[in-house]
Amino acid sequence: MSTLRFDPTTGDWVIFAPSRARRPHEVSRGAPSPSGDAAPSPRSCPFCPGNEHLTPPEIYASRGGQPQANARGWQVRVVPNMFPALRIEEDDHSLEESRPFFRFRGGCGAHEVIIESPRHEVFLANQPIDQIELLLRTLQLRYVDLLRDSRFKAIVMFKNHGEAAGTSLKHPHCQLIATPVVPRQVRLKQSIAADYYDLMGRCLYSVLRDEELEAEKRVLASNRDYAAVLPFASHVPFEIWILPKAQQASFGGVEPARLATLAELLKTVLLKLFIGLDNPDFNLMIDTVPRGGEDEEAFLWHIQILPRLTTPAGFELGSGMSINTVLPEEAAEYLRNVAVS
Amino acid sequence: MSTLRFDPTTGDWVIFAPSRARRPHEVSRGAPSPSGDAAPSPRSCPFCPGNEHLTPPEIYASRGGQPQANARGWQVRVVPNMFPALRIEEDDHSLEESRPFFRFRGGCGAHEVIIESPRHEVFLANQPIDQIELLLRTLQLRYVDLLRDSRFKAIVMFKNHGEAAGTSLKHPHCQLIATPVVPRQVRLKQSIAADYYDLMGRCLYSVLRDEELEAEKRVLASNRDYAAVLPFASHVPFEIWILPKAQQASFGGVEPARLATLAELLKTVLLKLFIGLDNPDFNLMIDTVPRGGEDEEAFLWHIQILPRLTTPAGFELGSGMSINTVLPEEAAEYLRNVAVS
Repeated sequence: MSTLRFDPTTGDWVIFAPSRARRPHEVSRGAPSPSGDAAPSPRSCPFCPGNEHLTPPEIYASRGGQPQANARGWQVRVVPNMFPALRIEEDDHSLEESRPFFRFRGGCGAHEVIIESPRHEVFLANQPIDQIELLLRTLQLRYVDLLRDSRFKAIVMFKNHGEAAGTSLKHPHCQLIATPVVPRQVRLKQSIAADYYDLMGRCLYSVLRDEELEAEKRVLASNRDYAAVLPFASHVPFEIWILPKAQQASFGGVEPARLATLAELLKTVLLKLFIGLDNPDFNLMIDTVPRGGEDEEAFLWHIQILPRLTTPAGFELGSGMSINTVLPEEAAEYLRNVAVS
Repeated sequence: MSTLRFDPTTGDWVIFAPSRARRPHEVSRGAPSPSGDAAPSPRSCPFCPGNEHLTPPEIYASRGGQPQANARGWQVRVVPNMFPALRIEEDDHSLEESRPFFRFRGGCGAHEVIIESPRHEVFLANQPIDQIELLLRTLQLRYVDLLRDSRFKAIVMFKNHGEAAGTSLKHPHCQLIATPVVPRQVRLKQSIAADYYDLMGRCLYSVLRDEELEAEKRVLASNRDYAAVLPFASHVPFEIWILPKAQQASFGGVEPARLATLAELLKTVLLKLFIGLDNPDFNLMIDTVPRGGEDEEAFLWHIQILPRLTTPAGFELGSGMSINTVLPEEAAEYLRNVAVS
């Protein structure tokens, strides 16, 4: 059973998802964790075709021909996480403890795994553009579907690539967690963007994108619909953002044709990272509005890619500030020169 | 040369400290970083007695007998970090870029290393209480001294223990970074505490401490002057806070007698972690008011210990929320039962 507890000193909700039958001191970096993954032996990979029975029953799968649930033949497959941080079955209201100062609530939410393709060893950037587009379409489909449940206030979509990024399950996959609260960090960014919009009448992220395109030196690549930039104030070395060129607050609203051009640019960007930095560990997140903000003009959904090349230490944890050892304009120049075909 | 750049989407300042002569793609987890450390071979450890010439000239040292700077004979020694994130010599004002949207300023600050003892292999918890007290007194001395420089707005004191906590230099040491801005996270916590004080007339952290002492089950240890608790909404497994029992906003104001009782409780807490979790990697931070808040009644300085047993992944980075797999009351019970003498 999972619960959320409120930290009154920061305004954060913390998810508590005690692992099955593990004693407290056995938690460790190698162990399965709800946002990371267990590490099966390759032949028993639960994400490989033929092993469909090793996952909980599928939520969705893209299949050609005669579809049969939980059988082979899928191209992208969505299943519940085996070790979920949050569950649809949990309470979605506040619970009472004996002392009123300790606020907590049921761990209602959803935690899904999006298996990117049947192929165990193929990194996303090395998939055909069609397959990447199918993955993006599936993410969008699940996003839109989950938002129909009014208990879910925000949906966090992400990919963990490599051990330093919190995964040890090799078969490529993305994840999605729907939360019953708007996370403080999400609310902060929305609020800053709203304040900027009130003051200036423009979307902060669109201004940032345009300024970066104008300055040029931190632009990695772009196409008709998207720009990939290494932001001026990147928090980590080789941080990359992919921003739409058209105003759009929600990832849910992206037109099918623009999922295709997104797949194209995402492939280029990830290939450059893969080749230029020798397959670095990274996290990829889709930053989109929380529930109700679909028509918001103050925000622009975007993709953030954070390579995990350095380890945040006491200064970063104690201050919230980052120390970045690589200037984004130098990182951008380096990656621009990486040939990808 | 280091600089600070402003991230308008979050309100964070990011420190840019490009490493000496390294090419952008050579950044990696093993490499020296300003908040981590270089990894010398043991015989050439710059923190060992006899190797004083391997560090920049010392800022302070505690020495018995006839003191001679940068020679052997010290008990605790403070030197500038070889790879500083910020430097006293840098500009402390805003700099101009060609485009006004990209705010940045000089990397003025201080970055010091506090070598905990002459002994290369002895973990802090295994030092005599006197030595721990001397370390705390030295941290306080440097803190108070640096605050005399009005350019410094906040001082972050921390210890990185183990590779997963961002260090690879074995000789035990703490660090301190003085920043020319109040970090957003520090400002947020101050602001939340101030709002609570306005509303309730009490310090939020004192209320938390009292509630935890009353609830008992998350209390690890306490003495006359301090309580060590695993907070109700701990962000990571085995997170521990040490809170003073008397109201005091600034670490700078702790009376000498209370540094002694702090050393005593800190030793117990770290020993329990060391034995109970088999010498886990962790970060320790001293959370204190920024400049000017010394008499603040809304805040209570405290120590935070964050073991690095799990890896934050895409969900944590994308939402700012934590997933904790161990309930603090269970972790507290486990640690309470660890015998330390």
